[in-house]
Amino acid sequence: MLEGIEISEGEREDFLGFKIKPKFIAYPKDEEEVVRIVNYARETKTPIVVWGAGTSLSGHLTCEGCILVDVSKYMNKILEINDIDWYARVQAGVNLDSLNKKLEEKGFFFPPDPASSFLCTVGGATANSSGGMRGVKYGTFRDWVLALKVVLPNGKIVKIGEPLMKNRGGYDLVHLFVGSEGTLGVITEIWLRIIPLPKRKTYTVLAYMNSLEDTAEVIRELRRRKIMPEIAEYIDLEVIEALNKYLNANLKESEGGLLIISVEEDYLDELRSILKGKEYEITEGEEAEKILSIRAQSAVALRAESKYMFVEDIIVPVSKLIEAIKRLKEIERKYNIKMPVISHIGDGNLHPNIMLDDPSKAETIFEEVARLAIDLDGSISAEHGIGVQKAKLLAEQIVKHNGEDVLKIMKGIKDLIDPYDIMNPNKYVELAYKLWEKK
Amino acid sequence: MLEGIEISEGEREDFLGFKIKPKFIAYPKDEEEVVRIVNYARETKTPIVVWGAGTSLSGHLTCEGCILVDVSKYMNKILEINDIDWYARVQAGVNLDSLNKKLEEKGFFFPPDPASSFLCTVGGATANSSGGMRGVKYGTFRDWVLALKVVLPNGKIVKIGEPLMKNRGGYDLVHLFVGSEGTLGVITEIWLRIIPLPKRKTYTVLAYMNSLEDTAEVIRELRRRKIMPEIAEYIDLEVIEALNKYLNANLKESEGGLLIISVEEDYLDELRSILKGKEYEITEGEEAEKILSIRAQSAVALRAESKYMFVEDIIVPVSKLIEAIKRLKEIERKYNIKMPVISHIGDGNLHPNIMLDDPSKAETIFEEVARLAIDLDGSISAEHGIGVQKAKLLAEQIVKHNGEDVLKIMKGIKDLIDPYDIMNPNKYVELAYKLWEKK
Repeated sequence: MLEGIEISEGEREDFLGFKIKPKFIAYPKDEEEVVRIVNYARETKTPIVVWGAGTSLSGHLTCEGCILVDVSKYMNKILEINDIDWYARVQAGVNLDSLNKKLEEKGFFFPPDPASSFLCTVGGATANSSGGMRGVKYGTFRDWVLALKVVLPNGKIVKIGEPLMKNRGGYDLVHLFVGSEGTLGVITEIWLRIIPLPKRKTYTVLAYMNSLEDTAEVIRELRRRKIMPEIAEYIDLEVIEALNKYLNANLKESEGGLLIISVEEDYLDELRSILKGKEYEITEGEEAEKILSIRAQSAVALRAESKYMFVEDIIVPVSKLIEAIKRLKEIERKYNIKMPVISHIGDGNLHPNIMLDDPSKAETIFEEVARLAIDLDGSISAEHGIGVQKAKLLAEQIVKHNGEDVLKIMKGIKDLIDPYDIMNPNKYVELAYKLWEKK
Repeated sequence: MLEGIEISEGEREDFLGFKIKPKFIAYPKDEEEVVRIVNYARETKTPIVVWGAGTSLSGHLTCEGCILVDVSKYMNKILEINDIDWYARVQAGVNLDSLNKKLEEKGFFFPPDPASSFLCTVGGATANSSGGMRGVKYGTFRDWVLALKVVLPNGKIVKIGEPLMKNRGGYDLVHLFVGSEGTLGVITEIWLRIIPLPKRKTYTVLAYMNSLEDTAEVIRELRRRKIMPEIAEYIDLEVIEALNKYLNANLKESEGGLLIISVEEDYLDELRSILKGKEYEITEGEEAEKILSIRAQSAVALRAESKYMFVEDIIVPVSKLIEAIKRLKEIERKYNIKMPVISHIGDGNLHPNIMLDDPSKAETIFEEVARLAIDLDGSISAEHGIGVQKAKLLAEQIVKHNGEDVLKIMKGIKDLIDPYDIMNPNKYVELAYKLWEKK
């Protein structure tokens, strides 16, 4: 059945160190080969896991005995950049930064900017609805995917949505597939909305803070004064030290961490007035780019620092950031651990990184951090997704915030679209439902 | 079962003249009363149609013997405007312009601006994913709804989504309910994303055009030069004449119609260079507001002009506007009719209004116009929705563009969430599926 399709054996490891032990790895050359792989999977009841670049941060890719479908080897073309209709159409396996480079050459811009953009694929970031530093202004992938091509579990190729800015062509399934973590089908092509490169000058302010609480106050004040930043990031002292140590970042080691805010020119005076009395410097152009690119490597630097690192991805309403930070500190004290914070603080998205020498308490701590977000009307994941790692917490959150029926509807959608249970099974919504049902 | 709930008899008519003949009209005071109405409907197998303000343009509200649930009488409160987390939380029956007024007082702004905003409810515009003049830059309701409260057909109250800018809490059901036209549940509350009022000066240019084709060329050139307008609207001579006649609009009666483009100050010079050689004038402030408010009343003025009027709502890629316009003219000639065009031309959304003395050919013409959009990779509806009026065409479009399996999935979702088939039954996706299945 699979004759002519390139196959190999082998194991892989994702960015967080989860081991992937497939039955075999398949490298489809086109959609027709994907269809044949899906048909084979269905008929032999073998799970399918799709591999882009392995930058998953929540155990999306684990599998024992699955078919790992690697779309990055051949299905990695930019098919069209349309400068009148303002979309880019790409195959799932294209690297995000390669696309960004081509877009820039043509004067365009795709806002979502996961820190892994140098490595990740558009397909992976779509399946995960990834975010990034520009999320505070532009949101995540879910806000920028117009349409998709998908091979459904029944082996049919369909197009989901239309590459139109407005469309009322039936229920919106696009957003169902974006962020579905490979559980509803194999995404083969994506139409992304693109916009012209921003034409206004922006400034990037580096503010040396007294504390994380202090930083949350600044963010609150930005909101209150109705300033829309392009970027509003925070890293604490431990992260700065790791960046200096491993990446020669040469950042000032500010006790209370570093707040990085980019704003358009006409917001600069007001930002200065908010930062009055604090130490800060204003950068622009290449210097600003360099700082932001160092910031993007924070997780990599931190990882070098610790034996075991668990990356959290909670989000709380901006109005509850100060309370969230208070509770994080309590958890640090309670377990006598370090949780250096990297944060897209402008939208309330905190990445406390749980650093452990002994991973035995990892799950307990991880869950306690996530529950803090549930308590504060936030979410256990803003942009890293659920995978296997957060499925139990997902069930808790949905039952508490949304209602049991919402979890049932989500499971119903999985059963409707993948009745064979072959697409990345036993993860995400399906696993959440099973864990909740068992209770 | 319904004791204590306010009930009345009566018939109603929607904006387009569709007759609504309910068994009775219910006026719930709160969610608990909605739950009791839904339970009654389920147990007595009576369809539910939700009424906001009746501004439907596609026959969403027709029913014989349904329970018409009027949420506008009591469930019409603004519950919260959060100036730190930047959302507004409202009951479904709140009038959109009342909300807009309150937001403006607080320095905020909700971009989608259906022409019916003076009349329509937020619940209705959410159920329909309505658009408006600002769609070219900001999209439609689907891009601005963060979360919903819904009474499901089983009588359970659930929250769909979270009022967070980023959230990976399971499959995205928010976008499934936005634009679901009352077929999945009764929307009782909505969290809308709000942003600060734009602070940059904008200018509104009135350009007197030679033709609609000529206008499409200007729009193409805007795109090619990467100018993002705030608004880009077009009305043709017949619309101008109707506005002058019925609303004393005092617009110049330009043979080739009027193009209205608002841009931020720093795009103005480039816009002038695109319009070189054409007659145009530049307005701003109150004068510009007045023109845009006149433009918003185009459909009302046109309706006064004709015995029967059928409002189309096609969208095509901007790159195919000229071809679409050519085909519209052919249809006018073929049937010897007038189809004055109102258009959100900046995003490719055309509203040809089919004016007839004798409505016998209405369906044929209506379908021919819609099929033109299907042919040109567009959509039969951008922002008015499907209702009963476009269900057959919806099936055609989905089967042609997306694949039969997409229609099956949509029908499967209806069955999953409303297995009792009580929520606005036999319309939209369900009707599309039935018509397709019968073929």
